[in-house]
Amino acid sequence: MKMIDRLPGYSGRVRDILEKLDVGVGCRIRIILGGNIFIEGLLMPKHEFSASDTIIVKLSNGYNIGVSINNIQNIEVCECISTPHTGRESQIDIATSLPMVKIFGCGGTIASRVEYETGAVKPAMTPSDLLDLIPELAEFAKYESEILFNILSEDMTPKHWEVIAENVYRAISSGVEGIVITHGTDTMSFTASALAFALRNLPFPIALVGSQRSSDRPSADAALNLIAAVITTLKAPFGEVVVVMHSTPSDSNVFVHRGVKVRKMHSSRRDAFQSINDLPLAKVDLHKKELSLINSRYIPRANSREEVIASVGFDDRVALVKAYPGFQSEIIDFLVDKKFHGIVIEGTGLGHIGSHVTKSIMRAIEEGIPVVMTIQTLFGRVNMNVYTTGRKLLEIGVIPGDDMLPETAYVKLSWIVSQTREIKKVREMMMTNYVNEINPVHTPQHFLKPFIG
Amino acid sequence: MKMIDRLPGYSGRVRDILEKLDVGVGCRIRIILGGNIFIEGLLMPKHEFSASDTIIVKLSNGYNIGVSINNIQNIEVCECISTPHTGRESQIDIATSLPMVKIFGCGGTIASRVEYETGAVKPAMTPSDLLDLIPELAEFAKYESEILFNILSEDMTPKHWEVIAENVYRAISSGVEGIVITHGTDTMSFTASALAFALRNLPFPIALVGSQRSSDRPSADAALNLIAAVITTLKAPFGEVVVVMHSTPSDSNVFVHRGVKVRKMHSSRRDAFQSINDLPLAKVDLHKKELSLINSRYIPRANSREEVIASVGFDDRVALVKAYPGFQSEIIDFLVDKKFHGIVIEGTGLGHIGSHVTKSIMRAIEEGIPVVMTIQTLFGRVNMNVYTTGRKLLEIGVIPGDDMLPETAYVKLSWIVSQTREIKKVREMMMTNYVNEINPVHTPQHFLKPFIG
Repeated sequence: MKMIDRLPGYSGRVRDILEKLDVGVGCRIRIILGGNIFIEGLLMPKHEFSASDTIIVKLSNGYNIGVSINNIQNIEVCECISTPHTGRESQIDIATSLPMVKIFGCGGTIASRVEYETGAVKPAMTPSDLLDLIPELAEFAKYESEILFNILSEDMTPKHWEVIAENVYRAISSGVEGIVITHGTDTMSFTASALAFALRNLPFPIALVGSQRSSDRPSADAALNLIAAVITTLKAPFGEVVVVMHSTPSDSNVFVHRGVKVRKMHSSRRDAFQSINDLPLAKVDLHKKELSLINSRYIPRANSREEVIASVGFDDRVALVKAYPGFQSEIIDFLVDKKFHGIVIEGTGLGHIGSHVTKSIMRAIEEGIPVVMTIQTLFGRVNMNVYTTGRKLLEIGVIPGDDMLPETAYVKLSWIVSQTREIKKVREMMMTNYVNEINPVHTPQHFLKPFIG
Repeated sequence: MKMIDRLPGYSGRVRDILEKLDVGVGCRIRIILGGNIFIEGLLMPKHEFSASDTIIVKLSNGYNIGVSINNIQNIEVCECISTPHTGRESQIDIATSLPMVKIFGCGGTIASRVEYETGAVKPAMTPSDLLDLIPELAEFAKYESEILFNILSEDMTPKHWEVIAENVYRAISSGVEGIVITHGTDTMSFTASALAFALRNLPFPIALVGSQRSSDRPSADAALNLIAAVITTLKAPFGEVVVVMHSTPSDSNVFVHRGVKVRKMHSSRRDAFQSINDLPLAKVDLHKKELSLINSRYIPRANSREEVIASVGFDDRVALVKAYPGFQSEIIDFLVDKKFHGIVIEGTGLGHIGSHVTKSIMRAIEEGIPVVMTIQTLFGRVNMNVYTTGRKLLEIGVIPGDDMLPETAYVKLSWIVSQTREIKKVREMMMTNYVNEINPVHTPQHFLKPFIG
């Protein structure tokens, strides 16, 4: 039996002192600095970035603080019975009966730390580091972890989606009972959509999870989101690719969003992710550690892991183009000249673009490039039958994107044209509802609420 | 004194019958079709599209219905005392003391009607037609109206913004006391931003108004939005360009949004317009016909109409480009090759784009093309200091767009480069807060509320 290190990251003199006190990570300690000044909190693991002579403590306000032993007069142990870490050690035998969850690391803030020399955040932490930081995870499952890449979210490409999809597929085949993917939040919904199309008939939900705060900032949401993601992949009744993120700025609830219907709607808030034109599938109550369904429209888990339908290719010659007043039609001409394989337009209103662009779009379609229309209002549905410009676009063969998010339509078209370039087939597939990326019925609940009556 | 036609659009036999009954538009009539079947409602004006032998009646459910006189057994007059139209006639003398409001027609659904032969909506109605349809407007002001163009919203271009701005400027100088602009909703927020930059120090608010329903559909919101727009331009304490649109799907309230901070967020709902990163400036209660302030941060009315600062030029060589995983840097290269005058990127997260694009952006800036970064999350603020990619973009000279909407930043850059192409000056102007397009303080109220706790 491999002994678990109770003092990960600690070495030298600091380690000696802590070992003498018989404390481990998770113990509550009081550090006396002299006089009446003391610091009380949970002993935390130490990372390579912090100086070797410091002790890291999580205060009750959530802040992590590092204290140099040179400033310490004394250390008292307040509580060390059944600390998470000793708990984990004693559970190692029991643990064999727990399900196996695979955690794939794909970078992002959830796996990042502050680069102290510059103050900027850089990816650094491995999934196993995360387990050290979040001992509560041990109660739900055993874990295997694998870093697929350690990149910032904005550097994701369709090629990365393929690598993730292939690895997820292999993990499902290998027999794991849950999969969690840590990912940067910027482009998480794109990757979630990609996996949703690439792998269907899933035996359990694939949970993408991220953090809007780096793990050593006070209100690190990484831990709570990760716990919720593990609960989701193990307990949820649906077999869909989901995004598991905070539902409010508070710590109690996390939403499980359908991957193809979610969007990052705020650059920095913890509850930045919002389902668009759909309800979240479920919420996770972190106090009760319970998942409850919100949305009755979901794809149930497949009965066996052999049923997964995998089609993991993505074409990187699709463009997502936004319409605006004065849009220069030469941009479409350029994409046609460069023989792009598909164009998704983020149109105005019900799915429009200036009528001066129609000719260029017509040329694109004539040259075998499928053009899909979506809406920049995000909420609502394409309806190109209402106005003359829209009807003209339909006539020349523009494919209406229904209520799909522009981002989802972009990923879907990239997935489709990697399989076929025949425009009739592309249209048929684009309009097929594979994984609830199209919601045929909208209710007022699906729209954002105005702040005031 | 010019007699006002009490039966606009009616002619021949139908007009004879109605004149004999001494009814006018706005009278409540009961049309007996035979047996116990009758239709009761308000007599409405008739438009060129409806057959010459029909009478148009607005039912209590809001629907307009046309009844051929060939099917009519009898017509009873229910109520015709102090109808709005007779009211207007008697007010003509009083009216001279009312303020003058200028209504500019720029097309869109608010000025459109169903094209009966195809079922599609086509622009057709003049502002004076709107006055016929909405007699309540007469209580607030006298009106001058002018159709600047009759185009669909998606066909607006920077050149149209210039024409509108010039006309608005002339109208202010001419002495009117309020200005309302009817406009298609698709690109209304772009035009509102354009006018906000083009004309500053306004003596009263310029109110853009539209409709999410064409005027002969049941829940036509045109009337209510227009009344609210007139109340706003006449009564509001601010001198800003605003968008006046329904705040909820119900009929009671209308929001007055700051033009540079509003966005169409739903393709079809009546309450599609939402202020982003800001509160609406005010709301109008349509029952009480009162405007109440919501936002204390506003630019007050200028003391005199001579103080207006006009700078009405817009450059149509600016592109608005959306970032996405796998974004092809050759799109930026193309804009540089084609010597575009400016590029606004709608970046991911806090203002990012794949690091493989940095080189092309650097070339753009080196060749004198300003590049502005905004966020596709819409809510929140650009912060390029947090991650390495963002800091690299700042280093090479990308201009951070703060909390400006991508659409507003696009219009602002178009406005700026029409005045100067000197990149240092462009940066300085881009970061100057001219008309509250930048909100330095966000509160939780500024974010959309999730539907569930």
